[in-house]
Amino acid sequence: MSADGRQPGLLEGLPPRPEAGIYLDNNATTSVAPEVVAKMVPLLTEHYGNPSSMHSFGARAGDEVATARQKVATFLGAAQPSEIVFTSGGSEGDNLAIVGTLHAYPEKRHLVTTEVEHPAVLGLCRELEKRHGYDVTFLKVDSAGRLDPATVAAALRPDTALVSVMMANNETGVLFDVNEIGKVVRAHGAVFHVDGVQAAGKLPLDLEHMPVDLFAISGHKLHAAKGVGALYVRKGTKLRPLIVGGHQERGRRAGTENVASIAGLGVACDLAANGLERENVEVRRLRDRLEQGLLAAIPDCQANGDPDYRLPNTTNVSFRYIEGEGILLLLDRAGVAASSGSACTSGSLEPSHVLRAMGLPFTLTHGSIRFSLSRYSTEAEVDYVIEVLPRIIERLRLITPFNEQRATF
Amino acid sequence: MSADGRQPGLLEGLPPRPEAGIYLDNNATTSVAPEVVAKMVPLLTEHYGNPSSMHSFGARAGDEVATARQKVATFLGAAQPSEIVFTSGGSEGDNLAIVGTLHAYPEKRHLVTTEVEHPAVLGLCRELEKRHGYDVTFLKVDSAGRLDPATVAAALRPDTALVSVMMANNETGVLFDVNEIGKVVRAHGAVFHVDGVQAAGKLPLDLEHMPVDLFAISGHKLHAAKGVGALYVRKGTKLRPLIVGGHQERGRRAGTENVASIAGLGVACDLAANGLERENVEVRRLRDRLEQGLLAAIPDCQANGDPDYRLPNTTNVSFRYIEGEGILLLLDRAGVAASSGSACTSGSLEPSHVLRAMGLPFTLTHGSIRFSLSRYSTEAEVDYVIEVLPRIIERLRLITPFNEQRATF
Repeated sequence: MSADGRQPGLLEGLPPRPEAGIYLDNNATTSVAPEVVAKMVPLLTEHYGNPSSMHSFGARAGDEVATARQKVATFLGAAQPSEIVFTSGGSEGDNLAIVGTLHAYPEKRHLVTTEVEHPAVLGLCRELEKRHGYDVTFLKVDSAGRLDPATVAAALRPDTALVSVMMANNETGVLFDVNEIGKVVRAHGAVFHVDGVQAAGKLPLDLEHMPVDLFAISGHKLHAAKGVGALYVRKGTKLRPLIVGGHQERGRRAGTENVASIAGLGVACDLAANGLERENVEVRRLRDRLEQGLLAAIPDCQANGDPDYRLPNTTNVSFRYIEGEGILLLLDRAGVAASSGSACTSGSLEPSHVLRAMGLPFTLTHGSIRFSLSRYSTEAEVDYVIEVLPRIIERLRLITPFNEQRATF
Repeated sequence: MSADGRQPGLLEGLPPRPEAGIYLDNNATTSVAPEVVAKMVPLLTEHYGNPSSMHSFGARAGDEVATARQKVATFLGAAQPSEIVFTSGGSEGDNLAIVGTLHAYPEKRHLVTTEVEHPAVLGLCRELEKRHGYDVTFLKVDSAGRLDPATVAAALRPDTALVSVMMANNETGVLFDVNEIGKVVRAHGAVFHVDGVQAAGKLPLDLEHMPVDLFAISGHKLHAAKGVGALYVRKGTKLRPLIVGGHQERGRRAGTENVASIAGLGVACDLAANGLERENVEVRRLRDRLEQGLLAAIPDCQANGDPDYRLPNTTNVSFRYIEGEGILLLLDRAGVAASSGSACTSGSLEPSHVLRAMGLPFTLTHGSIRFSLSRYSTEAEVDYVIEVLPRIIERLRLITPFNEQRATF
């Protein structure tokens, strides 16, 4: 990386770095809401019983888990609280959904997913194919990141155990029409799992009336703690546990319940349900302001993914001729947290698998940045980014090695 | 249950119930140490980054995880921090160890464990046998709950992938000689997994120099939060992930790190290391005082398990002619939290599988109570139990249906 942020002059003349950082990486993780922390702390210190225990300490803890289960069920629009299985997060939820379904239907050896899934689905499917003899169809998306339900229909086979797709893409925010896809899958008789990690809290959900059998959410993507999540399991759906042992979660997930974080997740779901309109009006307005501000001020850039059919909080912008890592490092030095691709695949210098699947050329995938806002984002924060980023891009382009090749792109 | 605690007179005349409850169920779960909570809260509210993110929020979170990994490694006596894989708790750790080993050695279809394991091992092994075609040998223990290394040696086969035993039994506290067992297992070339959930924090550990390949611990059994744990994986041990996806934990466990709880686990391990002597002197003294006080004051009762070779904090006492549930309910009404058997199997009315495996007769398994102390237990608490429990037992025996059959036992 040539633009490693160590050049002393690169940030010269920019407005002063804001004292508190500007956090625009909410698709990677979110701050825990104060209301959630307030719920959690007494359950760590004082009411710390094990819900399985036959005494008052245990009963109190059990009540907290039951209350949270009701809240999560209501938030998701589940028919009943027993359809909620608490997990340690999105990755475990996706793994439980997929492995749990395959183990419930041992005679079915085929599954269907897409090329743009989160690593928790994509990596697992590759492992199942490579080491466990399963046959996996990885569906393509179009240049806007959309998935045609007809391509799902065409992939289904008699031995298809399940179809797993995401509701909203974590990198671009692009939505899949899970209602249409689900109709196709369920008409065929396969199980339909939806990775709802990025969608939950940003889109209204009514799972009871959606053609969805399994739906995974993650606490830390909606202002609850890391290390907690939930898998919706429609009543009657056959599922084997991924973590086997105790009777917890009706035998669907062994291990002492993470009471404090589960109770916090319940509170976070209440907050998210109440905040949906704000997310779709105010957060969307700020996201659009940011995106339009950047596109207007910076030459040779574009927003990736279907502009209309996507999450209200996410924008993914490609800046030609420079590398995302350089942009991120300078943004960070300017006090702004953003992301290139998924946090779960960063660390590698591989360009985003999502943008590649959309057919973006190398020059655009390498210089792509995701900004993901939250209900705590402010207009002043957005305006600061609109002010500093064009200058950062301009300076990076002056020193990028790509620059010399610019004519050849 | 005839003695369901609803009889108004059963607690009459007992000393007043202590205002704060007396918590003697620390093998089920523990309170989170104040030092641990103090570590966790700022990582929920302020330093909430995702360790995989390429910005300061992420880097801070990553530093916290690295520090905790070092602390856990030191506590366990691991050779290096990279041998520590953070998990969501003991059940996941045990499942990762066992399933991860079996997937790493697909040609080996046999495993060895004991009849007295925690459900996270026992239930998983039954599932592997019943649904996945593995062959499992469940070893017997003697009447004191001990496991003879020679019986392990006799069970090993050419296709034995791994042996999984616990270091300390959660119900009785009885210890297995994992050093001797490990020598046998490793000489044979199989992988040796130890469920260390109950041992950690109560016994000195030096895993680098022990013949152990895998060792699972749980945060909430040693005054860290529920929902976090660690699996020690000796360098060079082949292991496939149970939760597949992102690159976290060097590909051994996908999912965003539970930063706050992991950092808290690090602090809890420091505290546990510093508290080992207290555990083995003061906690042991209180446990012995409790046990001897009860045995002296109550006729027809006995302490279960090897009296010398067991955890310093645990006593498991059987009271003939009455049911454990009745005792627990009245103890709870008197302000004392204890347990019958494992919290992970309670809820069922099945007698303890551990005590049955030790050959205890029905009359003793049904009336057994586990008291498990912690560094927060006090002499006043113990003395209160010694005062109230004999009277509770006496009253329950007057009304138990077993009483009429007493002569026949």
